[in-house]
Amino acid sequence: MNRKGILVVVSGFSGVGKGTLMKLLTERYGHYALSISATTREAREGEEDGREYFFKTREEFEQLIADDMLIEYAQYCGNYYGTPREYVEDQMEQGRDVILEIELQGALKVKRKFPETLLLFVMPPDAQTLIARLRKRGTETEEVIHRRLARAVEESEGIEEYDYMIVNDDLDQSVELMHSLIEAQHNKINRNLDFVGQIQREVRALVKGE
Amino acid sequence: MNRKGILVVVSGFSGVGKGTLMKLLTERYGHYALSISATTREAREGEEDGREYFFKTREEFEQLIADDMLIEYAQYCGNYYGTPREYVEDQMEQGRDVILEIELQGALKVKRKFPETLLLFVMPPDAQTLIARLRKRGTETEEVIHRRLARAVEESEGIEEYDYMIVNDDLDQSVELMHSLIEAQHNKINRNLDFVGQIQREVRALVKGE
Repeated sequence: MNRKGILVVVSGFSGVGKGTLMKLLTERYGHYALSISATTREAREGEEDGREYFFKTREEFEQLIADDMLIEYAQYCGNYYGTPREYVEDQMEQGRDVILEIELQGALKVKRKFPETLLLFVMPPDAQTLIARLRKRGTETEEVIHRRLARAVEESEGIEEYDYMIVNDDLDQSVELMHSLIEAQHNKINRNLDFVGQIQREVRALVKGE
Repeated sequence: MNRKGILVVVSGFSGVGKGTLMKLLTERYGHYALSISATTREAREGEEDGREYFFKTREEFEQLIADDMLIEYAQYCGNYYGTPREYVEDQMEQGRDVILEIELQGALKVKRKFPETLLLFVMPPDAQTLIARLRKRGTETEEVIHRRLARAVEESEGIEEYDYMIVNDDLDQSVELMHSLIEAQHNKINRNLDFVGQIQREVRALVKGE
């Protein structure tokens, strides 16, 4: 079977629990790699270069763009954010499934560039759960929470381009579902035509030869 | 989430273990239903009408065709074989995933009629394993085995239309894989656009209303 790594994009409403899900997934299974974004925004306290982000100057970032070293990039609030190509490709070559957490516009760009990318959208079981989770964080004002929700809805236009949804009700089940959706992808017929052709040849040889 | 039943077609080389796989799957999980074919061939000893097959006269079968009561049908060796529509649709309405074991030509017909059908192809880990399994049955001459293999290879032309393959090496793992491939299907975004739309409306209402 073809075990070349798969590129997986995870998106979903703010507060839906994407981060926790991905963290648990990589802890539970050894063959996943989380992609680390490059950004021009300032490092916040406690953030480390190469762990949360690769921190770049504007000049460095624009050089990455010019050299086609990013799978996708976008600007938010005057800063660049992007996915370095090299790390992703290296990991995939080594058979690791690479997970990117990016928003819908970026996700669709990645899918156009790499049509075999698996697009997953994490949904809350209902809207009340979502807002309750955002409030529980306690780090943001009601106004900011509302703005984030409004933007989330806007950004979910185009969601029908995604492959699967994960309704994040029970965290443990969601991790297992995410894992099995990615595993399924390894068994796609069109990823395994070499193997299929080899079996066909072997059987044909048996029929003729024996 | 949309739990309406899914139609699943299972195909694969003769001797690859499809039957055992499907039997174990339905024993292990309660929500699967195996479709029972209709046929005009004579019942063999031990076969029961409505269990192995629905046994029909040629006239009855042709009436089923005329009334569009079959999802697909074909002729082999002068006999009709087909899949009764009503049983399949009833089971799916009740939320059961219905599994049909049919050959490639029939599978592609079903997919054209019901594009949401999941097509699974069971592969042997290698050709030697396949021929060993056929011989172990001990019911067929070498000549028959060779004819079946030759036909199997012919019938696997078009296999790239299938969705997933299951390499049936370890039976227990194959059952679990089949189950998770079918479960994945329930999480397809385009099967759940009603749910997605509902969450979008709920979040919008929260943003405006509160």
